[in-house]
Amino acid sequence: MGGSVSGGEFDRDTKYITTRITVDGRDGYPVEPGRYRLIVARACPWANRTIIVRRLLGLEDALSIGFCGPTHDVRSWTFDLDPGGVDPVLKIPRLQDAYFARIPNYPKGITVPAIVDVPTGQVVTNDFAQMTLDLSTEWSAFHREGAPQLYPEPLRAEIDDVIGRIYTDVNNGVYRCGFASSQDAYEEAYDRLFTALDWLSARLENQRYLVGETITEADIRLFTTLVRFDAVYHGHFKCNRAKLTEMPALWAYARDLFQTPGFGDTVDFVQTKQHYYIVHTNINPTQIVPKGPELANWLTPHGREALGGRPFGDGTAPGPTRETERVPAGHGAG
Amino acid sequence: MGGSVSGGEFDRDTKYITTRITVDGRDGYPVEPGRYRLIVARACPWANRTIIVRRLLGLEDALSIGFCGPTHDVRSWTFDLDPGGVDPVLKIPRLQDAYFARIPNYPKGITVPAIVDVPTGQVVTNDFAQMTLDLSTEWSAFHREGAPQLYPEPLRAEIDDVIGRIYTDVNNGVYRCGFASSQDAYEEAYDRLFTALDWLSARLENQRYLVGETITEADIRLFTTLVRFDAVYHGHFKCNRAKLTEMPALWAYARDLFQTPGFGDTVDFVQTKQHYYIVHTNINPTQIVPKGPELANWLTPHGREALGGRPFGDGTAPGPTRETERVPAGHGAG
Repeated sequence: MGGSVSGGEFDRDTKYITTRITVDGRDGYPVEPGRYRLIVARACPWANRTIIVRRLLGLEDALSIGFCGPTHDVRSWTFDLDPGGVDPVLKIPRLQDAYFARIPNYPKGITVPAIVDVPTGQVVTNDFAQMTLDLSTEWSAFHREGAPQLYPEPLRAEIDDVIGRIYTDVNNGVYRCGFASSQDAYEEAYDRLFTALDWLSARLENQRYLVGETITEADIRLFTTLVRFDAVYHGHFKCNRAKLTEMPALWAYARDLFQTPGFGDTVDFVQTKQHYYIVHTNINPTQIVPKGPELANWLTPHGREALGGRPFGDGTAPGPTRETERVPAGHGAG
Repeated sequence: MGGSVSGGEFDRDTKYITTRITVDGRDGYPVEPGRYRLIVARACPWANRTIIVRRLLGLEDALSIGFCGPTHDVRSWTFDLDPGGVDPVLKIPRLQDAYFARIPNYPKGITVPAIVDVPTGQVVTNDFAQMTLDLSTEWSAFHREGAPQLYPEPLRAEIDDVIGRIYTDVNNGVYRCGFASSQDAYEEAYDRLFTALDWLSARLENQRYLVGETITEADIRLFTTLVRFDAVYHGHFKCNRAKLTEMPALWAYARDLFQTPGFGDTVDFVQTKQHYYIVHTNINPTQIVPKGPELANWLTPHGREALGGRPFGDGTAPGPTRETERVPAGHGAG
């Protein structure tokens, strides 16, 4: 993800490669198991969404995954975690190689998540907002048995509504706080962020999930920001009216999701902190990564079962994470 | 206060002008009411000590006070809050003028607190560690009726012991976290800080004050760091294992003191945040000042009366702060 600052305010660059992978293949890329590779970085909240959705839907066999390291240079995310510093399937050291294969001298940000067409080595899409919706709707033939409905038809209007505000004020809102270049722009973003968090807190006070009574796309989108809140956004982005742990409904909600298979088991707190504190030298020139906060509290009882709800609806929880895709020991909570 | 970084570790420059103002005047500066002026900045924890002690002891008439603004340039604290930007008694715009009057081209940091000899306009001392002890012991002839014993003879050994560790690991410890220039030096300082806070928490679990059953110099020294913890050190200096509000015994202890006349009424949170976030461009290059945290919680009940103790011993609480010395409305808690 990339962006720029104008008039003190952070503007996210939202012009993506919007080619879609669909059942009918109308953009030239039909859904096809084994053909594409999802490239992520665990640190990145926008990529984290796709890791969660792929796992909840059981798309591991249909869509392989490659992990970039937590830090990157000015231009590109890299495969520095892989043996030889090269993605084992794409055989490239830097994600930009796949972008350039599609669009020579691609002039914009080299972002994750991206889906790459393995035969040609070309990026198909980096349109993170559409990507998870397409995994739910276009890839349904390859979902696991018991996969949940994350974007159910009857609730789409309400989900779209909620995720619209979550995107502007929360997902992107924390970046607008952190990357503001004037006190006024920062304070405006801060007010919007916490007003939205108050609204979400009230909504979640007596309701286990954001929309309907099961986990949906809306919960996934909120979760990826909440799980980074105290570890990064509170200090690094100055989102410090309160910690998440000081917002009771949101904190219990976030723990409930964290403890649900497919959520917390995708989160690498070590890489996440390294990413933000080492990459953003404009706001953390020392590149020193905070040792805190303590994270064992993510595993404490949340009591949200009392609100009812059926996490996976008529479906089931996903099984254990595949061994090759597990968060390293010591990088999670506790 | 000033310092330098060597081997990644922050070293505080502790060579001060150590001339003392004493009853017998052996350094050439006898205690004399009306002769000296204490120069502080509300933002600075080392200066905050002197503001508290002067007020608890009722030395307002004997020792006048001048307030520098929260920010300063590379070289000196300034009187930018005063009409015309000049201290009304010393008639100087910058504190360095009083340092230079004593020692031309004084080569070290221009620090607060400092005590200036008004007739000559010369700094007498900036030795903050000795300063408050001398206010307690050398200035006793001018203490108010009912002034507490902040450094009582029978407890001095124990107080010295406790304040020794508080200085190294806590008062200066937070700076060692924030100004560390290597990850290792930071993590070592962080561990020492929180080990010391755990020790203090245990000590204060069943005991209202640090030494004996009344407020002493030790409590004042711990308070000035604790009151800045969540507002500054937690984020700015990466002292983020937990917020003060998440350390129950210390948080109740800090609130108890905050709500005691002479403590919270000396604290200007606005100036404090401005000072750290605007002056330290090496760790906060944007100079944006966080809007949080919310501070009304400083005024919540602390329940520490149940532990007994007599805050002022055989003495009494100080009266209201003089009008000219009050923290501006909106700059305190709540």
